Amino acid sequence: MKKLINSVDSVEEQMILGLVKSAPKKLRKLDCGNVVAEKKSDKVALVSGGGSGHEPSHGGFVGKGMLDCAVAGAVFTSPTPDKIFEGIKAVATEAGVLCIVKNYTGDVMNFEMAMDMAADEDIKVAHVVVNDDVAVQDSLYTTGRRGVAGTVLVHKIAGAKAETGATLDQVKAVAEKVIANVRTMGMAISPCTVPAAGKPGFELADDEMEIGIGIHGEPGTHRDKLTSADEIAKTLLDKILADIDYKNREVVVLVNGMGATPLMELYIINNFVQDYLAQAGVKVYNTMVGNYMTSIEMAGFSITLLRLDDELKNLYDAPADTPALVKA
Amino acid sequence: MKKLINSVDSVEEQMILGLVKSAPKKLRKLDCGNVVAEKKSDKVALVSGGGSGHEPSHGGFVGKGMLDCAVAGAVFTSPTPDKIFEGIKAVATEAGVLCIVKNYTGDVMNFEMAMDMAADEDIKVAHVVVNDDVAVQDSLYTTGRRGVAGTVLVHKIAGAKAETGATLDQVKAVAEKVIANVRTMGMAISPCTVPAAGKPGFELADDEMEIGIGIHGEPGTHRDKLTSADEIAKTLLDKILADIDYKNREVVVLVNGMGATPLMELYIINNFVQDYLAQAGVKVYNTMVGNYMTSIEMAGFSITLLRLDDELKNLYDAPADTPALVKA
Repeated sequence: MKKLINSVDSVEEQMILGLVKSAPKKLRKLDCGNVVAEKKSDKVALVSGGGSGHEPSHGGFVGKGMLDCAVAGAVFTSPTPDKIFEGIKAVATEAGVLCIVKNYTGDVMNFEMAMDMAADEDIKVAHVVVNDDVAVQDSLYTTGRRGVAGTVLVHKIAGAKAETGATLDQVKAVAEKVIANVRTMGMAISPCTVPAAGKPGFELADDEMEIGIGIHGEPGTHRDKLTSADEIAKTLLDKILADIDYKNREVVVLVNGMGATPLMELYIINNFVQDYLAQAGVKVYNTMVGNYMTSIEMAGFSITLLRLDDELKNLYDAPADTPALVKA
Repeated sequence: MKKLINSVDSVEEQMILGLVKSAPKKLRKLDCGNVVAEKKSDKVALVSGGGSGHEPSHGGFVGKGMLDCAVAGAVFTSPTPDKIFEGIKAVATEAGVLCIVKNYTGDVMNFEMAMDMAADEDIKVAHVVVNDDVAVQDSLYTTGRRGVAGTVLVHKIAGAKAETGATLDQVKAVAEKVIANVRTMGMAISPCTVPAAGKPGFELADDEMEIGIGIHGEPGTHRDKLTSADEIAKTLLDKILADIDYKNREVVVLVNGMGATPLMELYIINNFVQDYLAQAGVKVYNTMVGNYMTSIEMAGFSITLLRLDDELKNLYDAPADTPALVKA
C-alpha cells in the first residue's frame, strides 16, 4: 500500500482536520469528527454523511447554499448513530433538519436511529434516501439501488431551497424531486485500497474493467475487456437514458472522477457524452467535470444526469460557497 | 498503459473539445486547438499555455478574471510558435497581450518567436516567465528554475489586474510581483504515462518516492524511502521557507495534487502544512487544496506558498469564473 498518510489510525481524523483548516472561516470540526458550517443558520439545516473515502463528499460541501453538517464514518464505514445525532444536534434549528442519506443498509439504519434520538429531544427531523445508481438493483452493502454521485446534486438543490427560508416539508419535497430525476452509473479500471485493509478491495487484469461499479468497489453489472472511452461512456449512458425519459428535457451532466482519474480522461469522456446527448435529443443545461464523489484512489468515472424543471434549474443556479463547489 | 482514451492520436483534440463543451457559453476552441474565452474583451488579454497533461492547466483557467487564451501543445510538448501566435491574435486588444510562460526552454523559445510574429503585425505584447519551483536549479527541460503550480496564482492575480482596466505594463508588473513572491516544491510516489510513449516516464520501487520532481516527471533533488506525509511535507516546506522570508507575512497556500492523488491525502498533507506554518510564524490568508497543475495520472503533490501584500490580496480575492476556479 503506497499512500501519503501518517498512519492507518490517523487517516480520518487528520483528513477532516486538513479539510477544516483549508477553510477555517467557513468550517468547524466537532470533537466527534463531524464537519459543520461555522455559521449557524435559522433555516432548515441539511445533514449528510457516510463513510469516509469519498472526498470531497461530504465535508467539502458544507457551507453556504449546501450542507450545514457532514458526518464522516471510518473509511467506507457508516458513521455511528450517536455521531450522526451529534451532527444533527449541532446544527438543528427551529425550522428543522433534513438528513440526506445515500442508500446503503448501514447508513440508512444508523441515520434512522439518530433521527429517533433527535426526535426524542424534540428536534424536528426528516430524511431522504438517495438511490441514483442504475447499475444494479441490490449490491454488497445495499438493498435497492445505491446512492452515488447524484447525491451532490441533492445537496446543491436542497441546500439552495433551504436558503430561501422554505419549510422542512418543502425542502424535503425538492430533495425528493431531485432523487426522482437523477440517475448515475460508474465504472473502474483500477481499484482502491482502504488504509486499514492494506490491500486493494478487488483486482482487475491489465486489460480489464468493471462496469457498474459502486463507490466502495462493490461489483457492478459485469467485467469486460477494457475498450475505448467512447464505448464505455455509451454503455453507461444507454443504461441511464433507458431508465427514465430524458427526450427533449434539459439536464445537468456530472462527469465524476473516482479519485485517481486524470482530468484529461474526464474531458475526453465529456466530449463523447455531450455529442451523444445532443444526438439523443437531450439538452444540456450545465456540465460539471471533476472529482465530486470519489472512491479514494480508484481510477474510473461515473456519469450522472439530472432531469430539470424550472424550479430545479433556479435552485441549481443559486449561489453556493463551499470548499469543493462555488457558484457565483 | 491503462487509460480511458479512444486512441493515442486523439487525446489532445478530444480533451480540449471535452473541456470546451463543459462550458460552451464561456469557452471556444480555435481550429488550431487553442482554448479562448467566448467573450472578447477590451482589457489587456492574458495568454498562457504549454504542453498538455497538466489539466486543468491551462485551458481550465480561461474565463472571467483569469486567462483569455490557453495554448495547448501535445502532451508534455511545447506548443509551436504559430499555434501560440494564433492564440495571441485571437484575443489581442488595443490594450495589448501578456503571455504567462512557464520556464521550460522550449516554451520560452516558442513563446518568444510567437511574440516576434505578433509584434510584426503591430500587436502590443509582453511576457513574464514563471519559475517558482525551488527544487532544482537546472533540469531536464529547463535552464534555471522550472515553472510549476505557482503559475495558477499568476493567472489569478494578473487576470484580476487586467479586469481593472490596468495597462499592459501594470499587468506585467503585478505578474512579476507574484513571480517574485511565489515558491513551490513537489514530489511523487508513482509515475505517469505519456499516451504516445505508452509506458511510464520513470519507475519507482514500492517503497520509493522522488522528492523535488517536476511536472513532467523530471528528476528532482533525490530519491528516498517513502516516509510519512508529515515528514514529506516538512521536507518540501523547509526548502520553500528557506528560499525567501515568510516570517510574519500572510500567504496563500496551494496544496496541489499531481493528478491521481486522492483528496483524502491532500487534506492530510494540508493538516500538517497549516500547523507547521503557524509554528513558523507564517499567517495563512487563504488555502486551495486540489488538482490545479497536474502531471496526467502521477500520484504525488506540490506545496506552493505565495507571499502577499495588500495589492496581491485584493487581486487574489477578486471574482473569477472559469471551469476550474470560481471566486464569488
